[in-house]
Amino acid sequence: MKIAILGFGTVGSGVYDIITNSTTSELKNIEVKSVFARSRDKMPLATNDINEILNDKEISLVVECLGGLTPAYEFIKKSLEHKKHVVTANKAVAAKYLDEFVVLAKKNNVKFLFEASVGGGIPWLASLEKAGRVDKINRIYGIFNGTSNYILDNMYRNNQEFDSTLKTPQNLGYAEADPSADIDGDDVVNKIILSNVLGFNIHIFPEFPTYSMRYITKNDIDYLKKYDFAIKYIGETNINDSNYETSVMLTIFSKDSQEAVVPLNNNIITLDGNFIGELKFFGQGAGKFPTGNAIVQDIIDINSNVPRKEITIKNHLVFSKKLTRKNYLLRSKVNLNHDFIESSEQYKENYYLKTKEITLEQLEQLIKSLNQGDNILVAKFH
Amino acid sequence: MKIAILGFGTVGSGVYDIITNSTTSELKNIEVKSVFARSRDKMPLATNDINEILNDKEISLVVECLGGLTPAYEFIKKSLEHKKHVVTANKAVAAKYLDEFVVLAKKNNVKFLFEASVGGGIPWLASLEKAGRVDKINRIYGIFNGTSNYILDNMYRNNQEFDSTLKTPQNLGYAEADPSADIDGDDVVNKIILSNVLGFNIHIFPEFPTYSMRYITKNDIDYLKKYDFAIKYIGETNINDSNYETSVMLTIFSKDSQEAVVPLNNNIITLDGNFIGELKFFGQGAGKFPTGNAIVQDIIDINSNVPRKEITIKNHLVFSKKLTRKNYLLRSKVNLNHDFIESSEQYKENYYLKTKEITLEQLEQLIKSLNQGDNILVAKFH
Repeated sequence: MKIAILGFGTVGSGVYDIITNSTTSELKNIEVKSVFARSRDKMPLATNDINEILNDKEISLVVECLGGLTPAYEFIKKSLEHKKHVVTANKAVAAKYLDEFVVLAKKNNVKFLFEASVGGGIPWLASLEKAGRVDKINRIYGIFNGTSNYILDNMYRNNQEFDSTLKTPQNLGYAEADPSADIDGDDVVNKIILSNVLGFNIHIFPEFPTYSMRYITKNDIDYLKKYDFAIKYIGETNINDSNYETSVMLTIFSKDSQEAVVPLNNNIITLDGNFIGELKFFGQGAGKFPTGNAIVQDIIDINSNVPRKEITIKNHLVFSKKLTRKNYLLRSKVNLNHDFIESSEQYKENYYLKTKEITLEQLEQLIKSLNQGDNILVAKFH
Repeated sequence: MKIAILGFGTVGSGVYDIITNSTTSELKNIEVKSVFARSRDKMPLATNDINEILNDKEISLVVECLGGLTPAYEFIKKSLEHKKHVVTANKAVAAKYLDEFVVLAKKNNVKFLFEASVGGGIPWLASLEKAGRVDKINRIYGIFNGTSNYILDNMYRNNQEFDSTLKTPQNLGYAEADPSADIDGDDVVNKIILSNVLGFNIHIFPEFPTYSMRYITKNDIDYLKKYDFAIKYIGETNINDSNYETSVMLTIFSKDSQEAVVPLNNNIITLDGNFIGELKFFGQGAGKFPTGNAIVQDIIDINSNVPRKEITIKNHLVFSKKLTRKNYLLRSKVNLNHDFIESSEQYKENYYLKTKEITLEQLEQLIKSLNQGDNILVAKFH
């Protein structure tokens, strides 16, 4: 099978290196024929003309590693229309246009796979798909973003402030200069949208309750440590027979839970099934070779005719903010009396308000009544 | 596809319940036609005549849930000879007779799968197989036994002695009345032998260094806690280009590692690949529905023609006790001067001897020179 790689940055070059260096029998007959990149100088296979790739009948699979929406959306669409399989690590474009890509892939009798877009090297989406062959999945949750975990882990282990610790992953090159997607939730939202498709056959994106992690302070973490808690940035979906509830927010775990001890920029993602109970998958959620590895696994599935479940988007569940009741923790500059508050404790200059078990809708009401703008810590107890 | 289940205990009845209650499309056309069990009274499909099943041309797959070697070995062999696929959770019979079963399955053009035999509900063997499609695996290690973890977790969290905590899993029914297989290593040995096949294409069983966990005391754990360590019972294999080294022993982890915090009777198993780095898989390593689930996944793979890698036993690696150098911890009633000892500390009535980085062969020499019989703690630092 001959393939083309679009983009020759970190991920694209990782895919190229794995395919050209690995010696497994599954990769023997897979060959990179062309690479879409800015200049032919960078590597001998490079072309900057996408039509060269689209019109090459020998190329039956296109790996999209450009990232972002433009021109990735157009290139994926055209590749599918030219009856080429598409494999991507691009969660933004996959989360946004999945319906369209799925229809287009089916119509042209090719596959659209995106394992690497969630959890990087962790075999998460394929495992979720596989679990669903036997089990009803009721819940998925996890640490989907390595940069946010790097920051929280460093704050927790090394008593750092948010701002100083953010600079390290930026300097190491795996946090963007503009870290908003990582720390304000967009990245996790895209990954949980894609997980919802595989786990629950829903592909809808209302305004999920999404709370940034950028307001957390060293004092918050010190306060939680007093009670043997750690805090992580979590995407989560729960369902019942008619509703689903998705949220992205800081979440408080016992310090000796699997989530609490996840180090550095690793990810851990959990599914909870009727029969299987909780399965957790841990590994590198990003990086040249882990992400490249996940892409290559998709390529092998296509080349070896591994039957992957056809993606069916049913959208039979209705979004709800009333599905679960949880205790939440809010940090406030003022103390507050409110029906939803169970207890309140002053720690240094702040009040930590623990709620009763309330719904996400009630949480939103409570935050509104606090009226403290954005600079507020919002976290749920796991 | 019509199948038969041999044995209607915990696992067999779990398989039956999942197949008859699950509503997924993958299970729609899978039907349990017959159950080999002692009496027809227990359930309507029961027969106590194995030939009824073997000679039934409609039955194309046999699930072996009898456990132990006899009559499991004979029934698996005969089923394969009768051109029926075999799926089993029986690690003892799979580890011992794998070569024979693989040859017989190939000859009769059927499959022999045993996902549930290692890690129970955790999709471990299939994930290891999949990782090997891209990557060279260098190391596997993990908590493969739930009973041993239950004991160590309870000793660690609740300050219990070994003997008192052993009774709980026995009373809960998931530790045997004779717990030797769980705590002296046989169970882990079988599971690591099977993992070695999938990870490294070796199926050899020399006398792996296998140290029981039954000599651990509350004092040992207290001593380790002083240094922020926890201890777990670990099976591990490392390889290089020409050798492999497998061991089963207590292993010391930082208290904030993924292994240290594994609660109750859960398992966690890790693979380390060249490209992917460390992937960890966590879940229920035993039990009716988790193990049943893993068996049903194998059945679906066969029924849906999912291409599973053909098991190739190359035995190209030579067993070595000199592959890795590690620090070990020994508890001794007497202090000892020895070239291999780095430091020694008295704690209550015992001495804790920490070795330099030595090989497993050197460890064996050291233990011999201690000359304290069996009642000695032997652990490695991870």
